[in-house]
Parts: sequence; structure tokens; C-alpha cells
Amino acid sequence: MAAENNVPLFLIILVFLSWTANGHLPSYSIDEWAEPNAYEPSPSEFTRLTKQQALDRVRSMREVLNDYGVDAYVAPTADAHNSQYIAPSDARREWLSGLSGSSGTAVVTATHALVWTDPRYFTQFYLQVDTTVWSLMRQGTDLSIQDWLAANLPSGSVVAIDPTTYTRNMWTQLETALNRANVTLQPISDNLVDEARRRMGDPAPARPNEPLIAFTVDFHGRISRDKINELTTNINSRGASALILTALDDIAYTLNLRGSDIPFNPVFFAYLIIRTDLPTRNIILFWGNGVLPSNIVQHLALEGTEVDIRPYVQIFDYLRSMTAELAGKTIWLPQDASHAIHLAAEAGGTTNTLSTLSPVALMKCVKNEVELRGFRSAHIKDGTAVVRFLRWVHEEVAAGHNVTEVNASDKLQELRGEERDFMGPSFATIAGAGENGAIIHYKPSRDGPQRVITKDDMLLVDSGGQYKDGTTDITRTRHMGTPTAKQVLAFTRVLKGQILLGTAVFPRGSPGNVLETLARKSLWDVGLNYAHGTGHGVGHFLNVHEGPSGILSSPMANDPGIVPGMIFSNEPGFYEVGEYGIRHEDLVEVIEMNNTANHVMAEGLVGNFDGRGAVGFHYISLAPQQTSTLDISLLTDFEIKFLNDYHARVLATLGPILLERNLKEDYAWLEKECAPIVRSGTIIITSTPIIAFISVIALIFNM
Amino acid sequence: MAAENNVPLFLIILVFLSWTANGHLPSYSIDEWAEPNAYEPSPSEFTRLTKQQALDRVRSMREVLNDYGVDAYVAPTADAHNSQYIAPSDARREWLSGLSGSSGTAVVTATHALVWTDPRYFTQFYLQVDTTVWSLMRQGTDLSIQDWLAANLPSGSVVAIDPTTYTRNMWTQLETALNRANVTLQPISDNLVDEARRRMGDPAPARPNEPLIAFTVDFHGRISRDKINELTTNINSRGASALILTALDDIAYTLNLRGSDIPFNPVFFAYLIIRTDLPTRNIILFWGNGVLPSNIVQHLALEGTEVDIRPYVQIFDYLRSMTAELAGKTIWLPQDASHAIHLAAEAGGTTNTLSTLSPVALMKCVKNEVELRGFRSAHIKDGTAVVRFLRWVHEEVAAGHNVTEVNASDKLQELRGEERDFMGPSFATIAGAGENGAIIHYKPSRDGPQRVITKDDMLLVDSGGQYKDGTTDITRTRHMGTPTAKQVLAFTRVLKGQILLGTAVFPRGSPGNVLETLARKSLWDVGLNYAHGTGHGVGHFLNVHEGPSGILSSPMANDPGIVPGMIFSNEPGFYEVGEYGIRHEDLVEVIEMNNTANHVMAEGLVGNFDGRGAVGFHYISLAPQQTSTLDISLLTDFEIKFLNDYHARVLATLGPILLERNLKEDYAWLEKECAPIVRSGTIIITSTPIIAFISVIALIFNM
Repeated sequence: MAAENNVPLFLIILVFLSWTANGHLPSYSIDEWAEPNAYEPSPSEFTRLTKQQALDRVRSMREVLNDYGVDAYVAPTADAHNSQYIAPSDARREWLSGLSGSSGTAVVTATHALVWTDPRYFTQFYLQVDTTVWSLMRQGTDLSIQDWLAANLPSGSVVAIDPTTYTRNMWTQLETALNRANVTLQPISDNLVDEARRRMGDPAPARPNEPLIAFTVDFHGRISRDKINELTTNINSRGASALILTALDDIAYTLNLRGSDIPFNPVFFAYLIIRTDLPTRNIILFWGNGVLPSNIVQHLALEGTEVDIRPYVQIFDYLRSMTAELAGKTIWLPQDASHAIHLAAEAGGTTNTLSTLSPVALMKCVKNEVELRGFRSAHIKDGTAVVRFLRWVHEEVAAGHNVTEVNASDKLQELRGEERDFMGPSFATIAGAGENGAIIHYKPSRDGPQRVITKDDMLLVDSGGQYKDGTTDITRTRHMGTPTAKQVLAFTRVLKGQILLGTAVFPRGSPGNVLETLARKSLWDVGLNYAHGTGHGVGHFLNVHEGPSGILSSPMANDPGIVPGMIFSNEPGFYEVGEYGIRHEDLVEVIEMNNTANHVMAEGLVGNFDGRGAVGFHYISLAPQQTSTLDISLLTDFEIKFLNDYHARVLATLGPILLERNLKEDYAWLEKECAPIVRSGTIIITSTPIIAFISVIALIFNM
Repeated sequence: MAAENNVPLFLIILVFLSWTANGHLPSYSIDEWAEPNAYEPSPSEFTRLTKQQALDRVRSMREVLNDYGVDAYVAPTADAHNSQYIAPSDARREWLSGLSGSSGTAVVTATHALVWTDPRYFTQFYLQVDTTVWSLMRQGTDLSIQDWLAANLPSGSVVAIDPTTYTRNMWTQLETALNRANVTLQPISDNLVDEARRRMGDPAPARPNEPLIAFTVDFHGRISRDKINELTTNINSRGASALILTALDDIAYTLNLRGSDIPFNPVFFAYLIIRTDLPTRNIILFWGNGVLPSNIVQHLALEGTEVDIRPYVQIFDYLRSMTAELAGKTIWLPQDASHAIHLAAEAGGTTNTLSTLSPVALMKCVKNEVELRGFRSAHIKDGTAVVRFLRWVHEEVAAGHNVTEVNASDKLQELRGEERDFMGPSFATIAGAGENGAIIHYKPSRDGPQRVITKDDMLLVDSGGQYKDGTTDITRTRHMGTPTAKQVLAFTRVLKGQILLGTAVFPRGSPGNVLETLARKSLWDVGLNYAHGTGHGVGHFLNVHEGPSGILSSPMANDPGIVPGMIFSNEPGFYEVGEYGIRHEDLVEVIEMNNTANHVMAEGLVGNFDGRGAVGFHYISLAPQQTSTLDISLLTDFEIKFLNDYHARVLATLGPILLERNLKEDYAWLEKECAPIVRSGTIIITSTPIIAFISVIALIFNM
């Protein structure tokens, strides 16, 4: 599975494999997130190639293979930066096979055209792909790519891959397997799918190169000079002479720049090298055509950074020269850098390479005070927009107006757009009414018939914004009318799970997986579950899914452990296929726990894990839960107190903003939604019978 | 760490390493069990070699190395079967270095004598080992064995190991590292520590070869013919021609034989081969001098099994011939088989080997109906003995009698000895009073001054029995007088954690690690924790620690997932170093969950994980918890109900047995201990205020 996936390495874990090994194939991987990736069309948006198109594309591909002397070509999903979301210029597997989606690898030989994908895309394959031309290879069930190639290619064959689209680890695994079958794995720098497109007169779109955004210190809190100094210290302590950064968010974070080359992720196509062997011009940025706009040069200068700017495409030539200059020295590479980058860095043959998790990944996941303040501020703005949206959708539906899922998405984006420093959505909004709520990666379609939200619907809205001061990601599930008993049960238990995880106290540095079951416990108690991960890291005005930590059922290979300053989502759910979906999602900030912490458990602490330190979560998302859909009898006193405290905070924070803007109806709605819940028909009397007697008398006579 | 440890592979996991990587060195590994291994002396039992002895032994070792042309010798803890507990004949590292304990690897070169061990044994090292002769190498802190050897040996050096004491995986890792430094790793079949002993006139004790025990079908429920047939089917479906079994409990299980070659584990030294290429004499047992007693031959015949019996020591010669006979075919080996076994199986050069988790490990961890009935029956007998013991110790201490920890252990064994089919303890009893309770692997000493149990002590007793119908393992913690507030808090929270795990409902096939946090949650809530694993599998009249499943914070490499019929311990704890220890441990049986299951959650189930199936635990240990040490205000209604139900079951099950034996005082004590607990000073009234009023009036006037 790892070898055929564009998901970053930090998502590639064991559970899915172990579950499938047990013969239990979940529809979704329990370690995928609920939010969609870019380029996941909804079913009605699926384009399907005509049979002639499918044949033409494969024929063109085969001509190219023939000309290059290649027996099989492997086209995975990944771009050159192992990005989770990719740009249209990199959607090669999709062009070739017709299969869209975030996971899939196409393999073409003279006689076969195959797509490997995971169970999420089996149905989609048959909707999108012509099966007279292509065959589906089911990951976890059918032969793996390496086993198929080894079994089907004659000894002496050549398999080719664009080495920018495969990480070194994936390359080595495949190469080892093929070599055992006396098959050669050959890197070819020209992407052969692009070549096949050119020959058909249908060239791939150009790589985006949108303007850079100067991200200022009032938002990020740490100038690039300081970040680079820390990296330089790191490089020296590792005994290396240069560090190559390849992940787009690592580069954006390091230089305090942003971009818009990839949808939803405010990043730009670039490579960055930091050299400690040069006294000057030792920070080399590969971007665009190699000319930085003056405002960006000024921004960098203001932060004490001068870059040696070069064209994006020159990275490989530069590395090949650099490796000669650094003979006998060590070059440090992120382990998810492509095979192409590794090859170029090793070209001299006399340098050592050190391949680890990117040091920037470890820096940027712990937010500084300015970033944390920004996150909190962004969530106040985002909460304001979400509250206004929720009132709007309830009133529109109650009034019998024709509101579609797309209308709802648009309204939400419109309201977010009224907030300061809003830069766009952080992922494609999921607005799933009724049965659509149960499709975990759902995105309402603009084409074809649109789903109208009715009074009988449970409505799941998972959305987020990019603000200059922070990134948001929140899910609220609201029933538009009267929920069924099963819906109330599931809605309540999902919330109980969210609270059990959200209020947990645990040893500083614990890996996220040890917490994950807490979010499932209440559903498990009645035999229910959900098939996606529970928490992901979140970038600061960066990618909404950020590693290397997360809250999944399996350990993440590079989880550094949870420490104060990290941001996670907390998003359990429940999905009744064909009927409805429920998800409750808030972002939380990791805080240090002691007796004075602002946390419901603070007072009770009697230890701090033998000096290791205790940590907990502080909710930063601010929007009411629909308490009318809760079965309060299933809640503990603790849970009721937690919810009432949270709602009081939501009202106290957002209420004044709504009033200041004279949004009285929004305020009234919020006040109602934030009203404390009470256990109806039950009195808990703690004391002697005499006191109880007096209390009950007082209650009866309303004294 | 993995390479220097005698712990079975299933215990070698990531958490310990990831914790140490974070700079947090726990005193114990969180993935070790609480129960001691054999040969862990208590501090007062530590023997210490004289300096002269230490020098003599190392000198003898160096002479042997010189004669064999070896530059460095590695003596790990393991025996030839990768057993967790070893026999005295295999305690080579202990003889050589003086360091006892379950973890440690000695390395001797012409100039250095080093012992690698983990943090549990750092203090013990300085108590037992002469540091003018030996140096301590701290695992996780100092250079690893392979790095030290690579850095300190000149190119061209030879490192030797007895290949029976290293698994293939460990061997390959070390060899790869040494080869990079141009150092050769050489297998030498003569154990060079044994040779050094012989030269000093202090030969190692002979390998034990105690009489075999015929284990009959009324106890085990499945004749060996059936087990071997299943294995034969497995061998065929894997495309293999022979299966080699090397783990002692695998062999005992397969043949329905038991032994007593290793303390506490009722196993015997043997190897077993099942061949599918031979029509007859295809089950080859290597045991003793190659002559089976007639009662064992008859027992095997009764179960439809005829073995080709050969001397234990002939296994390697046999494998070398077999591999020639099986040219081109495949031999199946357990992955924890020694390098020596692998070498012999590969000697022909034309056979393939398949190395996986032993198929017997997967069979024996799921108990059949007869085994499960036996487990339940053994626990009734064991509970009876434990109840009698608990009353005895409380009364003796209250009476001011001089009861030591050793007296208590002896009394407990004496009482177990009165029960039918008791075969001995399943591990060395931990009876830790006061500060000794906080020493996780504690075993009271018979030598030197003995700790008297006083009225001020918390007493932790972790013990178990081997019965022919099942193996038990139970921990009860009792305060002998009045506990402190902190003790009550910790005692209650450990129990809350045990109940949260013990009552969990979860998807069939879940790996154990996803459950483990439930046991810690209540302690975590107040910043407390414990530094050992929470649950281990248990053999059926076999090893008290049985893989491949367990309930640890990290995934176990070969965890097949939890399914009905498995047995686990559930044993959270809390330890205040220098003061007291608390542990609550029961064995539980995994049961299938549905609305009619005998389980507190059964009624509430509304799903079964989309057809995957739900499972839960049924407690089989039967002995009261000390409710007087509980803070009932910390318990939920659910926990109170669970405890009261459990105590009612304990009384209903054990009470009649005590009465039948006319043990009236024991009965009276048990009845008192099993009395239901109630929430004092709190009335929960569910209904309208009027009904509440009437109820309170009724309460006041005692109507």
C-alpha cells in the first residue's frame, strides 16, 4: 500500500494492513482523515473517458514506452514534493486512466493497463474507468505492484518511473523486489505520461507559479533568520554541511512566505537548500523562473534573510554541482524527498547522505505564542461565521426555502469572507444532508441535480478557513427537524467520545495513538464505530493536515509525542450508510497541565507523571453543539458541566461580537443554543436526608 | 535493545525506545509485565563474586577466545528456545559477569569486559558486578553492542556467538552492522562460556531432563492427532514440506505433554518436526536421550500420534540430512527459531525457508471449550485458596503475630496445595509489604532479615498457580490497617481503570494496544501512571506469559487481534517508590458480545461493528477487592453496580465451597468482604419533586 500512495509518509501505518490481514476490509481506512483531498469529485461530477479516449491515451503511452525502450511504466499520484494535495499539472494517473481521487497508481505495459487503488475507490473505478481498457487491482487483495511486475515481466525487462514521483524508500523497496526477478527499475527524468500527452496534442497544464505572499512577523512571530539559525545549528550538530528542504509547507514555514499554487494549501512550488559550508549566499531558493519580486526580497531582508534565488527547474543541476563541492561531507535530506533528489545529491559519489524526518516538520508542529494567539483569534472569527451560518441554515430550512448543500457551502464561505484576514477555505467544504452525510469524503456537486436540505435531514458540515492568523477546521452536525432515537443515541455517544478525548490528561510526550480509543469508547459500548482517524495536526496558515503527529489508532512512524503548543483536530463520528452522518469536530491546543491550568481537570491533579509533565487540551473552536439532539440521560454530570462551561464560553466570546455588529437575531439564536442543559426529572441531592427534605420543599414551593 | 534481550520477540516493541528517545527513562519498561521472571533474586539474595572470581572467569574466557581465534564473544540471556524463563544450565551471562536478572548481554574481548542491560538492572549491576573487571553499558544511552563492536574492533576481527542463543533476526542485524566495519560474525556451536567453565573445573549444570507428564484429553480437549492434522493442512497450504517447532510451549501444546525442565513453566526441552513428505514416522521429536517412557508412548498412541523419537542433541544433524532430502522444497520455521536452527535447515543450500510467527502460537492462544471450562474451574479453586489466604493474613497481622512476606508466600502455596490438580506456582510469588510493594519485580527473600507485615502496611500479593485444568495469575492489594488519603485515591483509581478496561466492548480482532489506555485513564486524570504493561496472554497449564497477543501501550508485532476464547490478565497498578505498591489483577476470558451475552453491557448493544462482531471480557478470577479502601465518591453508579455484581458472584461461587468444607470463619469473612457498597450520604432520586418529597419523608421517618 505504501508504495502506491501519495499520502505523506506520516499517514502510512499499520492498522489498515492488519485489519485487512484479518479479512476485515473497512470501506475507509481508519487512519485516513474525514476531510476530502483536493480533486475528489462527488459522484455526479465523475467524468468518464469515452472508450476511444481511453484507447488513444494508452496507445500514446505505449508508443512512448516503445521509443524509450521501457517494458512497463508506473504512474503514481504523488507530485515531486510528496504533497497530500496536488496541482492539476501533476494529475497524471488521472489523465492516463480516468480515475480521479487521492489514491491510485497506474501501470502500463505493452499488453496490460492496470490501476492499483484502495477500497475507497473500488466503486469509483467502475464509474470512471473503461474496463475493456483498464483492470482494477485491489490493494490488500490482489497482487501488489511489485509482485505483479515481478511475476508478469520477463527476466531482463525494464520498468521506468519518473524519479520525482517516488520517494527514496518506495523506490528502494520496489527496486529490491524487481531485482530479485532480474527486472531493472530505471529512473527517467522526462515524465512519460507528460510526453504521451504532448504527442496527442493534449499537453499537461503548466505548473502553477502564483505570486508569493509576504507573511509578516505580527502573524508568525519568528523571523526567518531565527528559524534558519536553528536549522543551521541542527545541521552542524548532525555533522552535515547542507540541508535540502523539499516539502512545500516546510519551505513556506522556514521563509515566512505563502503562495497559492495548490488548492487550499497556501504553499508554492519550490526547493530550499541551506548550506553551512558557504559564508554567504548559503540559502538557495529554487522558485519560478529565478526572479524574486522586490517586495519579497524586501520582506526577506527585513527578516534578516538573503536568498540566492534560482529557477525552480535548476534544483537537480545545482545538487549535482553541490555534491562535487561537498566531497566527503554529509548532505541532510528529508526521508520523503524524492528518489530524484536523492540521486542528484548522491551524484558525486563521494558525499554521504543523512535521511531523516525533516527537522522543519518538528519545528513547525509546535506553535509559538504569536501563532497560538493567532489560532485563538482566527477561531473567534471563524466561530462567528459558523454561528451565523448555522442560524441561517436552520431558519431557511424551517421556512421551507429551497436551500441546497451547495447554497449552504456558498453561504458559509460568504460569511467567512466577511471576517478579517480570511484567505479562502482550508479544504473543500463537506455539506452532507441526510444520506450524503454518511459519505466520509463527500463534497456537494455544482453539476447535475443538487440535494436540497429538508426538515427531515441530519446535516453534517465540515469546513475550515485559512486566515492569516491561523487555519480552522470545524464540523457541526445539526438535525433540521426531529431526530430519530438512533440518531439521538449516536449523536450523544459521538459527543461523549469527543469529550472523553478532549478532556484527557496524559503524560507529556505520549504518542497520539494511545489516546485514540477514548474517542471511540462510548460508541464501542453499544457496538458502533467510525472508519476514519480521530485527530490530525493543523498548520498555521498552512496545510490543514500537518504531520508528524496525529491521533490515530496506530502509531505514526515519526510521532515525536504530544507537547504543549501543538494543535490537533478532535473529530469522532458515526455514519449510517444511506441515511445520515454525524461528526463533531473541534480544534484543540495542547496545554501544560498543573493545578492552575485553565482546564476542567486542573484542580484534581495530584501528580505530574513523576516529573515528566502532564498535558491536556484546550478547545479553540467556538460554535454551539445542538443540545436538543442529545439524550441527556446518557451524559454524566461531568459531561454536562463540561458542555455547559463550553457553551458559556462560546456565548461570552462570540455574543459581544454579534451584538457589536448589531446582529441581534444571530445573538438571540446563539444565546438559546448555548443555554445550559439540565438533567430533567432527576434531582441529585448530596447531603443528609434533612437537608434533602428542606431542598425538596424549597424546590416544590419554588423558594 | 532487541538484540541484547532474552525476552521473546512478542515483547520487543517500540514504546520503550520512543520514550527514551524523548529523554524520559522510566525505571521499568512500560511493556514489561509486572510478574518476575525466574532467577530474579531479591536484593538481599544478590550474590557478588569476589574480585578474584571475577578475574578468574574473565581470564578463562579470554584463554578460550584465544584458542578459538576469536576477538570478541557475545553471551546473551537466551536459551536455545528463546524462552522467557531459562534453566540454570543456560544462565551463562550470569556466571560470566555475576549479573543475574532477565536482561543482559555480556561481551568479552582481550581488553574489555562489558555488560549491556536495561534501566531495571543498572542498580543491580553495581550491587553484583565488580566494576574493576566489568563495565556497564546502559541500553538506550551508551553505544549499542553492534556500534561498540564496530567502533572498537580492528578491521578483520572475528566476533563469535553460540548460534543457538541468537534468533535469526538478531543475527542478521548484528552481522550486517559488523560487516560494514569489515568484522566477521562467526557462529561457534561449542558454547565458549561453557568451555571456560569446564576449563576452570566449574562446569555448567546439566540441562534438565525431568519426566514427561501425559496431559489427558479431559483437560486439554483436543487430541494431538487433530492438532497435527491442522498443522499439516497449514504446512500444505503454505507450500512447505516440513515445519520445525522450537518454542517449548508450542511443543508441549502440540503433543499434549507437559514437563518441569524450567521453573514455573511446565515445559520440557525438545524440538519437534512435522514432515509432510514422509508417509510414516513423519513426526520427529528430539527429547532427552531419545527413549520415550512407555506411558508416554501409550498416551501419544491413545491420541492417534506416533512419534519418531530421537535424542535432543541430534536435531542439528537431522536437519542437515533433512535439508538434503528436501532439495527444492520449503521448510517452515518460526521466526524466533535460533540462527543455529536456520543454518542447519539451510545447510543443503537448495531448500527454501519460510520464517513466520509459529502457527502453534496462533492455535494455542485461542482456548477450546474444554480449556475454557478448565480455566474457570481452576479459578474457583484458586479463588478459594486466595480467600482463605487473605483472611489468614488479615487476622494474623491484626492479632500482632509475626508474619513475614515469606510466611505469607508459603501460606498461600500451602493453601493452593490443598486444591485438586495443583501442580505448583505459575511464577515466583510477589508478596510486597509497604515499600516492597513498589518494587515491581519484587520477590521476598528467604536469606537475610525478613520483612514483617505490619498493621501500617499496604500488602501487594501477586501470585498464581499451575493446575492441570488451567493456569492462574491474580493480584490483590490489601491495607492491613488504615490507608492514607493518597492510598485510597490511588487504590480507587487503579480499580476504576481496571473496570474501564475490563468492561470494554470492542470490535472483534482489535489489537490489544488500542485498549490499554482505558486502564490508565483514571490515574492519568490526576497525573499518576504505572510503568508496566497491562495485560498478557496466559497459557493453559502452560506459560503464565503467553503470546502473541497482549494489552500493551504499543502494538505487538504479531498480534493477531483479540477474539473469543483468548485469556488475558488485566492488571493496572500504582507505585509510590519507597512507600507502597497497588495492583489489581484478574484474568479475563474474551467472549462474543450480543444482547444475550453474560455481560454488563449486553443489553445496551445496538450494533456489532457492521458485522465484524463485538467482543468483551468475562472475569474468571474470583476473590474480593478490599472495598473499605475505596473512595466510593469517586466511583460511578456503573462502577458500583459492576463491583457489587462481581462480589455477589464471588460469594455465590466460593461461599458454598467454604461452607461445604466447614470453613465457617472463611465464609463469614468472605461474606463481609463481598457486602455491596453503597454511596453514603447521597440519595439519587429519579422522578418528579413530589415523588422525591414523599421519598425523603419516608426516609426520614424510616417508613
